[in-house]
Amino acid sequence: MDKKIKSQMDKKIKIVIWNEFVHERENNALGDYIRTIYPDGIHRHLAHALAAQDLQITTATLQDEAQGLPPERLDDTDVLLWWGHCAHDQVEDALAERIALRVFRGMGLIVLHSGHLSKPFRRLMGTPCRLRWREVGEKERVWVCATGHPIVQGVPESFVLPHSEMYGEPFDLPGDGQVITMSWYEGGNVFRSGMAFQRGAGRIFYFSPGHETYPIYHDSNVLTILGNAIRWGTPTAIVPERVTPSPVSVEPIHTANPLANLDTSALHQ
Amino acid sequence: MDKKIKSQMDKKIKIVIWNEFVHERENNALGDYIRTIYPDGIHRHLAHALAAQDLQITTATLQDEAQGLPPERLDDTDVLLWWGHCAHDQVEDALAERIALRVFRGMGLIVLHSGHLSKPFRRLMGTPCRLRWREVGEKERVWVCATGHPIVQGVPESFVLPHSEMYGEPFDLPGDGQVITMSWYEGGNVFRSGMAFQRGAGRIFYFSPGHETYPIYHDSNVLTILGNAIRWGTPTAIVPERVTPSPVSVEPIHTANPLANLDTSALHQ
Amino acid sequence: MDKKIKSQMDKKIKIVIWNEFVHERENNALGDYIRTIYPDGIHRHLAHALAAQDLQITTATLQDEAQGLPPERLDDTDVLLWWGHCAHDQVEDALAERIALRVFRGMGLIVLHSGHLSKPFRRLMGTPCRLRWREVGEKERVWVCATGHPIVQGVPESFVLPHSEMYGEPFDLPGDGQVITMSWYEGGNVFRSGMAFQRGAGRIFYFSPGHETYPIYHDSNVLTILGNAIRWGTPTAIVPERVTPSPVSVEPIHTANPLANLDTSALHQ
Amino acid sequence: MDKKIKSQMDKKIKIVIWNEFVHERENNALGDYIRTIYPDGIHRHLAHALAAQDLQITTATLQDEAQGLPPERLDDTDVLLWWGHCAHDQVEDALAERIALRVFRGMGLIVLHSGHLSKPFRRLMGTPCRLRWREVGEKERVWVCATGHPIVQGVPESFVLPHSEMYGEPFDLPGDGQVITMSWYEGGNVFRSGMAFQRGAGRIFYFSPGHETYPIYHDSNVLTILGNAIRWGTPTAIVPERVTPSPVSVEPIHTANPLANLDTSALHQ
Repeated sequence: MDKKIKSQMDKKIKIVIWNEFVHERENNALGDYIRTIYPDGIHRHLAHALAAQDLQITTATLQDEAQGLPPERLDDTDVLLWWGHCAHDQVEDALAERIALRVFRGMGLIVLHSGHLSKPFRRLMGTPCRLRWREVGEKERVWVCATGHPIVQGVPESFVLPHSEMYGEPFDLPGDGQVITMSWYEGGNVFRSGMAFQRGAGRIFYFSPGHETYPIYHDSNVLTILGNAIRWGTPTAIVPERVTPSPVSVEPIHTANPLANLDTSALHQ
Repeated sequence: MDKKIKSQMDKKIKIVIWNEFVHERENNALGDYIRTIYPDGIHRHLAHALAAQDLQITTATLQDEAQGLPPERLDDTDVLLWWGHCAHDQVEDALAERIALRVFRGMGLIVLHSGHLSKPFRRLMGTPCRLRWREVGEKERVWVCATGHPIVQGVPESFVLPHSEMYGEPFDLPGDGQVITMSWYEGGNVFRSGMAFQRGAGRIFYFSPGHETYPIYHDSNVLTILGNAIRWGTPTAIVPERVTPSPVSVEPIHTANPLANLDTSALHQ
Repeated sequence: MDKKIKSQMDKKIKIVIWNEFVHERENNALGDYIRTIYPDGIHRHLAHALAAQDLQITTATLQDEAQGLPPERLDDTDVLLWWGHCAHDQVEDALAERIALRVFRGMGLIVLHSGHLSKPFRRLMGTPCRLRWREVGEKERVWVCATGHPIVQGVPESFVLPHSEMYGEPFDLPGDGQVITMSWYEGGNVFRSGMAFQRGAGRIFYFSPGHETYPIYHDSNVLTILGNAIRWGTPTAIVPERVTPSPVSVEPIHTANPLANLDTSALHQ
Repeated sequence: MDKKIKSQMDKKIKIVIWNEFVHERENNALGDYIRTIYPDGIHRHLAHALAAQDLQITTATLQDEAQGLPPERLDDTDVLLWWGHCAHDQVEDALAERIALRVFRGMGLIVLHSGHLSKPFRRLMGTPCRLRWREVGEKERVWVCATGHPIVQGVPESFVLPHSEMYGEPFDLPGDGQVITMSWYEGGNVFRSGMAFQRGAGRIFYFSPGHETYPIYHDSNVLTILGNAIRWGTPTAIVPERVTPSPVSVEPIHTANPLANLDTSALHQ
């Protein structure tokens, strides 16, 4: 048996589903309504709905110690799913930075719905990631644009979400995202709703459907997409920390160093 | 006469050359040496060397009030050149953020040499922007890769910098940079030394040659490239601030809102 | 006065609007209908509608000598607009090749509507450029995605074409196109309707609205976009023909040539 | 056991290594020399050197029936490796077209050395794919730029090919290639020597080292790269043929068709 496949079988993909877990716990009519859809929180719902033999799924929330992702846990994560909406500001800058560094080393990151404004995603995109939005329960139709891409295996050319929050163009992202899906909205808007990026050794997938007041994470096509994205985002390998100085050249240098007698170490601290 | 050209003639491009201005002022042998090349600082040297009738060039330094770029000045800048090396950490996060927002609205940004690790550039790229480096005065040969690009008009296919600091691959950048120039180093390294990006309505050009201990900004090809980059980076227009809510749809929505009787405003604060 | 601006004023941008000019001449009910919109052909209509002081516009058709673009004419063209639908196959492969080579040297190319399947466009994209389509006169809404891009200066965030042929995703294009506009269709489809590419020194803009049975080229926003695209696509300079052999190295080679005594010229004919 | 992994184990990846197989058969001093390196042809050498349990490798040459790739064989190929140099013109246009279509449906394509000018590669890139070149046996040093990419797993940051044909910038390619490796040449040139592309559902990898007069395909790092590229290029799935008309809308259209009484079928043949 091929060794690579053998070793892939031996170890499961380690997934952490992170949720700010605020709206689902609110003690008011809105919280009551959201709990009819996600009684235990979006994170636990997704963990259950995405369960599979090749995955080892755990969940984390903003309320957990170290905001759910202490360094040793993050450093043991293959793919991180991120759902946040109203509490982006409470996420520590240092956590967003650690997530970004882990992505550069190879971790997959799947950013869900209003996570487009989350600290880790904006940190990684470098753009404001703004978009048009409207919440009136209109119909959304998702189109597969990247036919044959691993993320849309088993997904029909288009499918409908009967009620959705509208996320519309212009969506300010970097230019190298691959358009995996685009969405049509009844109210006249369009959106690049599924976008794939490579950053360092890591893969990032943003997928917009997932507003907390509609049962979007109960939709089978949406779950297929998220399950595919997890496998697509799984690292081939985690790359070591970078070393950047290279004081000894790999080829002989014949040019005399004009600064040979000058201490320039102060320039490189 | 065409009105657009007429109005371009009437107003000069407003350039700010920003320099951390630390090494050139140091009271030691290294400072003495750098002052033989840039007696008044890299910023003043570049302002003089790039002077032209269509440009209104001013300079700014880290030591100036508001670190040289108070909001009203930045908001009146068409193209910002940025040179920094040892004092990146002293630049305020808020200034890097304001620069990024100005770029998204249309301002050009030209990042020089060790500015690859500056806060504004890393903020805009979203990647660590690391590279291999070595300072032994070796020869660098710059190759034009994007033949015909406005930034390399008048530049030969390749040219030599007799002494340079080596900046080498791997260079971790986003995938949508256009390779304008690549560099060959005597010591065996290669580098994407001139990279162009679009972020929002703004253009960004990174150009690596420019170490402070070699007279690189005295080289005519380097100056041609910087002068071209300024014109290339000049905004067509500064876009207004974004408005993101879109509560009223532009097409009629026939789907009934399932949450019509629920106050969801708390979700969108 | 700045010399560059001066010389831009002195010479007008040379535009050729090419039209296969078949449907507008047909002697049947369909031809009669199309002539109510474009009595003299789409090419002459556009030439009139886009006329401006900085442009020198001429037209060409499939029926002209050398299919309208003899070498000397093509080599004197700054920006070529291309409209074709039913006669793609009649365009000579050699003409498509000459157009592609002219683009690589710097000419702008604006491909209109069903030109997505034209020989020059497919030759330049390298992909099949297929899309979903439907002609039932439904409403199209065009959204500006690249806010601030020169091609959409003066265009509102979205605008409506009351009747349009639907062109929908998936649209198989290379990955480096910049999404300038996207379209929403009443019938549920979405499309990247305005896409900008760089190929060699030349710029390419594809814009899908423009079906011959609707008065789309009478729409002021569409005309603004096409006029902007012409200026955006105007070459900075036409690059010389490439020379590829480089028998004499620019840096000294110390490695002995193991084939010094062997005639390998047969490998490089 | 995960079904997907199980089924991957059950079927081997079907590889065809295509070689024009001209130089290795020539009855002269040059042919004699090349046969000291590749006595049975580059294709058979690579088939032997890349052999692995998960691969089913066969070879094909220009001299075979249907130029080695009759439709039924091509349609049963997962990844095609292509080596050609002096006989590009003899490859039938129709074969290049069939290869391109197979790539769009998912087949991987690995283009070797002078295959940058082959018909299939130029057809897929849409650009001339020209480069600078020189054959004097100089040293080449290959740098990994995309640290962590599957294609460079197990490859050191840089490695040396003692003798190589120089392939140098400018290399005219589309803008969406991912730079996997770059090369440094003793004679002063640089080159994007390993470039990865996505076209439709298929992946393409171009790798320049591989001149027939040097034992480059005996180098272990080169073989590691090619072996990795094969696995990376293996299709997730072969997508069905595209259907493009979409006469019945998926959402209700309220706009009246202004051409309802006109037969427009002639426009869409």
